[in-house]
Amino acid sequence: MTEKKNIAIMGAGLVGSLLSLYLAKRGHKVDLYERRPDLRKLGAFGGRSINLALSDRGWRALRGIGIEEQVRKVAIPMYGRMMHDEQGNLTYQPYGKEGQAIYSVSRAGLNVALMDISEPDPNITYHFNRQLLNLDLHTNEAEMRNTETGEVEKLQSQLLFGADGAFSMVRNAMQKTDRYNYSQSYLEYGYKELTIPAAEGGGWLLEKHALHIWPRGNYMMIALPNIDGSFTCTLFFPYEGALSFESIKTDTELLNFFLEAFPDAVPLMPDLAEDYFSNPIGSLVTVKCFPWSYQDKALLIGDACHAVVPFYGQGMNAGFEDITVLDQMLENFDGDWEKLFKAFERKRKPDADAIADLAVMNFIEMRDKVADPRFLLRKKIEARINQQYPDKWIPLYTMVTFTDLPYSYALETGRLQDEIMKKVMKHIQTVEDFDKPEVQQLLEEQIIYKEKLKKHTEAQGRG
Amino acid sequence: MTEKKNIAIMGAGLVGSLLSLYLAKRGHKVDLYERRPDLRKLGAFGGRSINLALSDRGWRALRGIGIEEQVRKVAIPMYGRMMHDEQGNLTYQPYGKEGQAIYSVSRAGLNVALMDISEPDPNITYHFNRQLLNLDLHTNEAEMRNTETGEVEKLQSQLLFGADGAFSMVRNAMQKTDRYNYSQSYLEYGYKELTIPAAEGGGWLLEKHALHIWPRGNYMMIALPNIDGSFTCTLFFPYEGALSFESIKTDTELLNFFLEAFPDAVPLMPDLAEDYFSNPIGSLVTVKCFPWSYQDKALLIGDACHAVVPFYGQGMNAGFEDITVLDQMLENFDGDWEKLFKAFERKRKPDADAIADLAVMNFIEMRDKVADPRFLLRKKIEARINQQYPDKWIPLYTMVTFTDLPYSYALETGRLQDEIMKKVMKHIQTVEDFDKPEVQQLLEEQIIYKEKLKKHTEAQGRG
Repeated sequence: MTEKKNIAIMGAGLVGSLLSLYLAKRGHKVDLYERRPDLRKLGAFGGRSINLALSDRGWRALRGIGIEEQVRKVAIPMYGRMMHDEQGNLTYQPYGKEGQAIYSVSRAGLNVALMDISEPDPNITYHFNRQLLNLDLHTNEAEMRNTETGEVEKLQSQLLFGADGAFSMVRNAMQKTDRYNYSQSYLEYGYKELTIPAAEGGGWLLEKHALHIWPRGNYMMIALPNIDGSFTCTLFFPYEGALSFESIKTDTELLNFFLEAFPDAVPLMPDLAEDYFSNPIGSLVTVKCFPWSYQDKALLIGDACHAVVPFYGQGMNAGFEDITVLDQMLENFDGDWEKLFKAFERKRKPDADAIADLAVMNFIEMRDKVADPRFLLRKKIEARINQQYPDKWIPLYTMVTFTDLPYSYALETGRLQDEIMKKVMKHIQTVEDFDKPEVQQLLEEQIIYKEKLKKHTEAQGRG
Repeated sequence: MTEKKNIAIMGAGLVGSLLSLYLAKRGHKVDLYERRPDLRKLGAFGGRSINLALSDRGWRALRGIGIEEQVRKVAIPMYGRMMHDEQGNLTYQPYGKEGQAIYSVSRAGLNVALMDISEPDPNITYHFNRQLLNLDLHTNEAEMRNTETGEVEKLQSQLLFGADGAFSMVRNAMQKTDRYNYSQSYLEYGYKELTIPAAEGGGWLLEKHALHIWPRGNYMMIALPNIDGSFTCTLFFPYEGALSFESIKTDTELLNFFLEAFPDAVPLMPDLAEDYFSNPIGSLVTVKCFPWSYQDKALLIGDACHAVVPFYGQGMNAGFEDITVLDQMLENFDGDWEKLFKAFERKRKPDADAIADLAVMNFIEMRDKVADPRFLLRKKIEARINQQYPDKWIPLYTMVTFTDLPYSYALETGRLQDEIMKKVMKHIQTVEDFDKPEVQQLLEEQIIYKEKLKKHTEAQGRG
């Protein structure tokens, strides 16, 4: 029986709140400290409101603690991408097989749900308006400021989890230790949230069960459905340049740009100019670091150790999967927290790096390639290959979104598939070409060859 | 005629000192601020004493200000690598063509030389024992602490250069600006300096005109000659593991390890244990960041914006080349410092990234591959290819060390050469095999193909 600990979690966002449930389930006493006020007491939800796409890895973590059904009530399945071209023509591309979907949820809504589920647990206590000022990693003594009273209190915990997001103060303390590996890397794009309100009398003005994309090469807009009938749109746009946040300064410039770029969306956005000029520009950062832990004292989790850009819809899912992986390790836990933390970070780091890289790569795919007929044809061919070789060929997007295969495996396999597809596509002009004997033979050869190569590599211990 | 500026350079190391000469030459008034005391007043040279290998890019910058000959007097040419195996057998590998050498210089000795050359210039003033505490980039107001008196002074300059090394405080100020890209990445190896003293009665105990390497796979020792007859040895060794800084704790363990790993060096190192247990372990960091400048106020240069690991011997050379590149841009300068800084960082960043990556790659080559007969054979074959195609095939090491081709070009070309060599080496068992018709034909084809590919790529603007 493992000793029960007094555990402090810094950050009561999605990952912190879910983690508290998993730790309390094992009998630990958990205190969560959140810099912001209690979301539930605010009239409107403050903070980041960008919509999230919950997919299999996220659901698995919710299921693991028995709260899948509660969350499913506020989630809208999106079965595919709906592309909008400059003339307003639509093209639809399913995300996976029939029935496979990613789920639109509101960050604030999900956070509130997780708080409501966890707070009644006698082992879990939430403390809001508590800002971490300083952390002594040697002793786990934290200096916390009560942002309502201004008072500074000392806080002592036996174990501390840093679930405090991309700008983590717990990580900040680790960054000051010797030989700490750290990188923060920004895209030259920002994002701005806009709204398509619900139809008069209720209902959705666009197809509800899709993620909408207006891909425009150098920039794009997306829209995700909300349960109230509205859509949250996000414009991803360069900070600087001929067409950029910098270049658009007036209502007229804005409207002209939108009429040119997103003509079918304009009539649906009555508050466009107000939204655009009053909402802040969000930045897009990738954070990588190592190690994630300090001795047997502290562990980073979620965005705090692997903030990624949102283009694979995996940020929250990766954070939730951290919890699943940690919980599996706790199954056979021998009481040595330092060993646990080290095993966790070693296992999880390659996967965190992989999803970070995949997310950046997917930005290019979303804003540019999805509008390319050759790309769409390739996706169809890949679906055919997957039908023909269901065990040997799972498309990259499917591996990431609808399986629990490690992200690092998905990235590596995706690269091999990419090499094969380059060869195959040389022979393909239409979907029917897939059945041509030379295509079938080439594919067979390539798949057998890559399988062999992979087995060989794995046998060499370099897999 | 460009307006003369009051320029502050933070850091009076190698790059800062050399930069002061270039700026003063153009009529600017330059003040250098150095955290440490005046090296020339110290009995022994403090700080980092690791030897440096001055190569073509470094010489070019010294020549540009007319001080090449003065420095050459204290530099020892090393014409090749001398590998020492576990039995003390020697293998020699020239660095380039006959007469081509890299030059061993002492960091402190070169720094003193640069100070002695620059300080008499009435436009150049050195301020020692001045620590930069804080910098307001908007105003270029710096808070400086006099480390002798403890007094804090405000310092106002029109332009500020951050030549303050890998742990730059000027960069630190930039890191606090919005969307700053930054990474620091440590190798899991440290280094320790050791000494082979001069022979009794003077002279060198090992070949003087070579860089000595004891490559041992997972670790290595190197030795560079000093003008006083001694060699400075550097042991590159893992921090942790079965054989590591952590594992060796006693004189006996140290001696046993050295007798096993470097038997021929032990008799030459009478102070081994004392050196080993009293010298600090140095860490090996790569720093990348962007941008390097702030408006028309401040510019980073040298290690401050691109600290690299020492395994290509290019850290100082890259910093000196920064100065050459900046000086060339100043030739056609129209008075717009912000434009100059932006053009400089845009031109130089890909090359800084390339030499950082090359340096990490060369660590593996030095500690591991140079002991491999196949690798040595490949080097000989490459020398033959270079003879046969002198314009089309310059070996990577030569491009980096003995030319001023951009580092990024060298890295890219090196990758293409690597692909070709993998194919060519399949047909080669001895140097004589190079003349076999199939080898010659393959090589011809490959070189023509890659030339075409490169021209095509450049024409596409992706070169």
